[in-house]
Order: sequence, then structure tokens, then C-alpha cells
Amino acid sequence: MAVQIQNIDEILELVRTALENNDLDAALTYIQKLRTPDQADLLEELEDADQTIILSSLTPENSADILEYMDEIEAADVAESMPMEQLARIINEMEADEAADLLGDLAPEKAHLLLSRLEDAGEIQPLLIHPDDSAGGLMTSEFLVLLEDMTCAEALNAIRQWNPEQEDFTYFFVVDHQRHLRGVVHLLRLVSCAPTQRVGKIMDTDVVSIPAGADQEEAARLMSRYDLLALPVVNEEHVIVGVITVDDVLEVVEDEATEDIQRLGGAEPLDQPYLLTSIWKVFKTRIGWLMLLFLTETLTGTVLRYFEDELSQVVALSFFIPLLIGTGGNAGSQTTSTIIRALALQEITLNDALHALWHELRTGALLGIAMATIGYVRALTWGTSPTLAITVALALFTIVVWANGLGSLLPILATAMKIDPTVVSGPVMSTLVDATGLFIYFTIARFIMLR
Amino acid sequence: MAVQIQNIDEILELVRTALENNDLDAALTYIQKLRTPDQADLLEELEDADQTIILSSLTPENSADILEYMDEIEAADVAESMPMEQLARIINEMEADEAADLLGDLAPEKAHLLLSRLEDAGEIQPLLIHPDDSAGGLMTSEFLVLLEDMTCAEALNAIRQWNPEQEDFTYFFVVDHQRHLRGVVHLLRLVSCAPTQRVGKIMDTDVVSIPAGADQEEAARLMSRYDLLALPVVNEEHVIVGVITVDDVLEVVEDEATEDIQRLGGAEPLDQPYLLTSIWKVFKTRIGWLMLLFLTETLTGTVLRYFEDELSQVVALSFFIPLLIGTGGNAGSQTTSTIIRALALQEITLNDALHALWHELRTGALLGIAMATIGYVRALTWGTSPTLAITVALALFTIVVWANGLGSLLPILATAMKIDPTVVSGPVMSTLVDATGLFIYFTIARFIMLR
Repeated sequence: MAVQIQNIDEILELVRTALENNDLDAALTYIQKLRTPDQADLLEELEDADQTIILSSLTPENSADILEYMDEIEAADVAESMPMEQLARIINEMEADEAADLLGDLAPEKAHLLLSRLEDAGEIQPLLIHPDDSAGGLMTSEFLVLLEDMTCAEALNAIRQWNPEQEDFTYFFVVDHQRHLRGVVHLLRLVSCAPTQRVGKIMDTDVVSIPAGADQEEAARLMSRYDLLALPVVNEEHVIVGVITVDDVLEVVEDEATEDIQRLGGAEPLDQPYLLTSIWKVFKTRIGWLMLLFLTETLTGTVLRYFEDELSQVVALSFFIPLLIGTGGNAGSQTTSTIIRALALQEITLNDALHALWHELRTGALLGIAMATIGYVRALTWGTSPTLAITVALALFTIVVWANGLGSLLPILATAMKIDPTVVSGPVMSTLVDATGLFIYFTIARFIMLR
Repeated sequence: MAVQIQNIDEILELVRTALENNDLDAALTYIQKLRTPDQADLLEELEDADQTIILSSLTPENSADILEYMDEIEAADVAESMPMEQLARIINEMEADEAADLLGDLAPEKAHLLLSRLEDAGEIQPLLIHPDDSAGGLMTSEFLVLLEDMTCAEALNAIRQWNPEQEDFTYFFVVDHQRHLRGVVHLLRLVSCAPTQRVGKIMDTDVVSIPAGADQEEAARLMSRYDLLALPVVNEEHVIVGVITVDDVLEVVEDEATEDIQRLGGAEPLDQPYLLTSIWKVFKTRIGWLMLLFLTETLTGTVLRYFEDELSQVVALSFFIPLLIGTGGNAGSQTTSTIIRALALQEITLNDALHALWHELRTGALLGIAMATIGYVRALTWGTSPTLAITVALALFTIVVWANGLGSLLPILATAMKIDPTVVSGPVMSTLVDATGLFIYFTIARFIMLR
């Protein structure tokens, strides 16, 4: 009976103790109580040497499943340290697409040597040419196609004789004798149809497909939009070359969201789980943006020097600096995160640019009025002079509207220029609003207070 | 032949023109060229009156499919404006879970009246009691269970006779005579097994299931972790009451990412597509945080007043204020977005709190050294005095380390207190770092420059 996920930490302790006592059998028994994804998690916590021992001691089928669920970089690490013979035996049991991903992460000479020993080399080799983040990189070449002139009985027989590594196939794609994609049929339909009926007569001819070179995000979008469990991948001649299954796409959706969230926080995405990433790697994902933003932010110093006279005349002006530019940055971040997500989900497209800008300017006006009111009251209760309080209120209104306009326009502009709109992160927005916000504030102050 | 998605805008124009010329047949012909999700998108762009006419003119099956794909609020709007008879005919063709969601969005009296006219009322009614965002709210009650003492032939017969609204079922759950969940069997397995074999002998007894009251995110996590296409929902007696399918979960994953991204931008999530949301609603999702942050940000004014003497002695100190607190806010945002995503993906848990803090403090130290160096050089080239340049460099180092520490600790603390860690948004981080950063800066200035 499989153990609940909460107990992994307990099992991990038991396994560690068993390994320390050189009781490999006990360790294996504990591990076998877990489901595969949990076994993979547990293995990631162990030392490299222990990983190798355990993967060599389990059945090749079980070890193959574990490697498929492990983080890619960890899996490649342990694979590098295993003897060639044993590794080949395990990879033989992996799904073709996962095997190709693993081979792609190994040293080229090792991958080459391994490939020559694999039974399914013919299935794996074609997958190696596709970039990891393309539809071709996501697909498996292990699938069964039906011919349109087969009968239902023949089709069911072919399916029964086919014995895939992964048993999740329920949609079968139908081709002509040149393997051109013609239709799709669900297993349920084959089970229910008359044995002598032709597959071509009962198939659905409206098949959504994707070219092998398309981006994996496009595959995720199509499968999510049309509720597909399997998406056929085709070459230029519309010949089916692979199938993408929904479990791979769930991962893509999660990974893309992770990348977007990390970019919106102002850092380049990490390509592996957080705690497995060294601080040097984390440093490198962040320092570029931090420095670039720092240099941009020095503009604020330039603006402040430009208004040095006003600052020395009314020192109290400086008390409101962080408050004003902070609020502008916050309003800008709120706007960009909304707009960027709407762009990602295709809720807004480039055609809606003006519509979105107008939406945000009006929202900004409402927010600006509210913030100006609260800012005016707060300044007065602080004992600020009424003219300074009015200056602060007007500056708040203008800065919030400006931040909302900028926050909606910049991501759309980036998209129009084929740049990922997540470059307009929260930190980028607040940095841009800081310098321009100061300029707005002191210009208003000059007109109202210092004429 | 279905039309490519790029052409929706063209079709929309053709439909609009046809409707203006009162040529309903032409409009329907154009619409029928599209796939259902695209039909739903197109309908959302039309006036309410036109939506009603079109949904009444298509077959109930087609209209049902369209309503399932439309945005929930739009679907409820058009349903409210349709005659009861027609609406009932359409809802009869909807999947039970989608029908229940729609009924839940209608006026209670209308929903009640409708329910009494529906053929599948018995399937829909139990679904109405579950909250929308629970596993029970996500499940369908339209599923077929197999008995463990059925033979494979009997099971296949039952499956053939069953004619579900949705044909995507490929996993069948197996129960005992009290409907307790006992196992799961894949259709492929039933097709391949000997006709007299018992289902109980070939089923997989290790079934992942979820209680009806669990959060929908937990359902998404389980299905993504264990690569499930169908997840059985059980009550307290472990009796199967529903099934969640993977297409519903893909939506949950996307929706949760959208919510997280909007919260991280410092706004409450919108519950409908951006351009369909009125500016008043957008205003309401943002004003609360904006005001709260404004009031917190007034702390910066307090800190600045406290150090008024230092400020008036060395006016140049103020030139660096936005630069220092801006950099601190950026470093903090980078950290929180990474940590929050790692928490969401369960890459780090509460047990790893100290590990993550240590990771970030060291990363912060690296980033701090780099920023202090660049800040020192930049201050000198600006013609700043060496002591002020050193003050700025030291303050930058300290603020960056502080921001990284705070940025890793706060989301983890929120999680420990069962609060959604996304409350520690980028804007919250920069606001907190602003006041504390100023305090750090002036304290260092007092020690170094003003002794």
C-alpha cells in the first residue's frame, strides 16, 4: 500500500539510517513503499553515491520511472556516475521523450556511446534534434497510428498487441498510407463500433496539430484551449512525427508561470529547483538587473540636483519623496502585473492596446483621486503647510495616473517589439516611476509654492 | 473544416455584418466554421441580444458546448436573458459539473425553477452544495464505476452502453457493492484482458483520491505530481462521489498562477478577463493595498524627520535616498518572487526555512559587495566626498543583505501563519525596505560622517 506524501520525511530518515548501517535491503524496502514521484523526491535528498547504489539495485523499470520524475539536472548527475551497462538497461525502460531529454543532458561522448547500446535508439535519435523548448522537444515518438482503411477489429487488435512503456494512450491518430495525419479516434469509440466498420468512417477529421518547430508554450495553449489530452506533432508534409501528452503540458504551464513570476520580481528565471541552485547561480540571475536598475535609478540623483534650490528653500519637500515615488511604483506594479498576465493569457492582444491604455488611465484617475485625498489629509495632520499639502495631493494624482499609463503601455510596447513583456518587472516599473515621479513632484512644487 | 484561430477576427466581422442585415442563417454558417472554444470567444464579442438569438438557433448540444467554454460571468448573463424552456434544453446537454457551475451563477429563484425542469437534476443537485474552489466544486458526477466482481466482458459492455456527454473517460474506477473506492483500471487494460477475467484481479489498487472538501489547488497538485488524467473524489466513508478530469485542472493551474501574479503585483486578483472587468472593479482590487502601503510608507517621513539635523548639515545625503531604498526594494522583490514560487511548488517547505534564509543571506552578501563597489565608484564620479561615498557603499551592502533576509523570511513566516505568502508582494517588500533602509542609511551616516 502506498504511503501518504506527508510521511516522506520519516521514510527518508529510515532510509538514511538503513544506508548508514549498510542495510541496503531495508533501505530498498522502505523506498518501495512510496509512489514513484515520491521515490524521486527522496532520492534527490540522498548523496550521489547512495543514489547510484539504489538505482542499480531496483528493477530497471522502477529506476527508469524514478529518473523520469527526478529534476533533470539531478538525473543527469546520477546518470553520469553510473556504469554504462546498468545505465543502458535503465534507459531502455524509459519513455522515448524522457530518454532523449536525459541523453541531451549528458556529456556528448557518453550519450553517443549509450545510444549505440539502446534497443530503442531508432525512436530516441530523431527526438534529439529538437530544441528542448519546442513542440518537437516535448513530444514522444512512441505512439501507435491507425490506418484509415483498417477495420475497428483490426485496430483493436493492433492496440492490444502494442505494448507501450506508458499506458496512458486513449486517442489514436489515423493516417493514410503515406503517414499523413487524417483524423483521430478515441479508444471508447473503437470499443463501441461494429468490428467490420472502417476506422476512416468513424474518426473525427477535425484534428488540431502543431508543427515540430513551434514553441512549447503554443502546444500548451492549444491543449488548454481545446481541452486536448494528446496533440499530434507534424512535419512540413503534415506527416505525424510525434505526440505530446497532457502530463508534459501541465509541467510546461507550471514552468512558464514560474519563469514569469521570477522575471516579474526582477530576476532571470532559475532553471532548477531553488534549494538545488548554488548561491553563485542565484547571484548571476539577479545581479544584471540590479545593476542596470541602479544605474537607471541614479537619474533620481540628477533630478534632485536639478531641483537643489527648491530643496534647500523648503526642506520639508524632501520628507515626501519616498512616499510619492513609492506610491507611484506601487500603482505601476499593480498595473503591469495585471496587463502582463492578460497578455500571457491572450485576454488582450496588440489590437486592444489603446483600449487597455484607456482602461488604465481611467482606473488611474480613480485611484489618483482617492490617493490625493488621503495624501492631503495625511500631510495636514502631519502639520504641513496647506500649500505643500496641495502640492503633495496634486503630485500624487499625477504620478498615479502616469504610473498606470506607463504600466499598461510598456508591456504592450514590449510585446509589439517581440520582447517578452515580463522585462517590465515590478522593479523596472518602480525605477522608471522614481525619476519621472520626482520630476513631476518638483515641477508642481515650483509652480504652486515657489513662484 | 475548422478554421484556424487567426481568422476569428475576420469571421467576427462577417457575423456582425450578417446580423446587421438580419441574415441569421449566414451568421450561423460562419459560426459553425469555428471550433467550439473559438465560437465561445466570438460570442463574447457580440451584444447580449445577438448572443441569445444565436444560442437559441444552434442545436442545444452546440449551444451547451459554447456555454461551457464561455467566461462564467458572460455565460450567466446570457443565460439570465434566455427563455426558461430553451435554457433548460441547452443545460440538459451540458456536462453535470459545468451545468452546476452555471446554475450557481444564476439568480437563486431562476436556478431553482430550472432545476425542476432538468433531466439530469439528480446528477447536478449534489454538485451545487460544494464550494466552487473545492475538489467537490471541480468534480463531475457523471461517471461510470465498475464493480470489482464484474468480468472484463461485462465491464466493456457496461462501458459500451454508457453514453456520456463527454467522451474523454479512459480510467474507470472500481468499487465494491457499497461503492467504496477499491481500484482503478485503464480502458486499454480492459480491451486487452481475457473476457472472463475479473476486474478486481486486473485493477490497480493504488489509487490516489481526494476528499470532496479539499482545496482545488490540492487536486491540481496531486494530478500534476502523479501525472493523473482522472482523480476520484471521495466522501468520509471513502465512497466515490465524483471524478475530476485533467482539463479542469489545467484551468486551475492557470487561474492560480494568474492570482499569484496579480497578488505579487500588489493587487487583489480579478475574477474575470481583464477587458471584461469594469474600471470600478479594477479600482476596488487595487485601492486597499495602495492605501495601506501609503500609510506604511509615511514611516519614511517619520524617519526623515528624525534625521532632520543630519539632512540639513549634509544636503547631499538626500541625493542618494531614492537610489538606496530603490535598490533595497529591487533586491527584496527579486527574493520574494523566487521564494514565493518555490513555496507554491513545494520546492521549499517550512522545514527549510532556515536553509532558505541562509541561502538568501549569502546571496545578499554577494549582491551587496557588487552593489557597494559600483555605488562607491558612481558616487565618486559624481564628485561626492570620499566619506559620503563610503557611507553610501556601506549602506548599500547592509540594505541589500537586509532586503534579502526580509524577502526570504516574510513569505515563509506568512506560510507558517497559514496566510497566503503572496501578500508579501513586490510593493509590500519595497515599502517595508524603504523605511528601514532609510534608518540604516542615516545611522551609518551618523557614525561615519557626523561623529
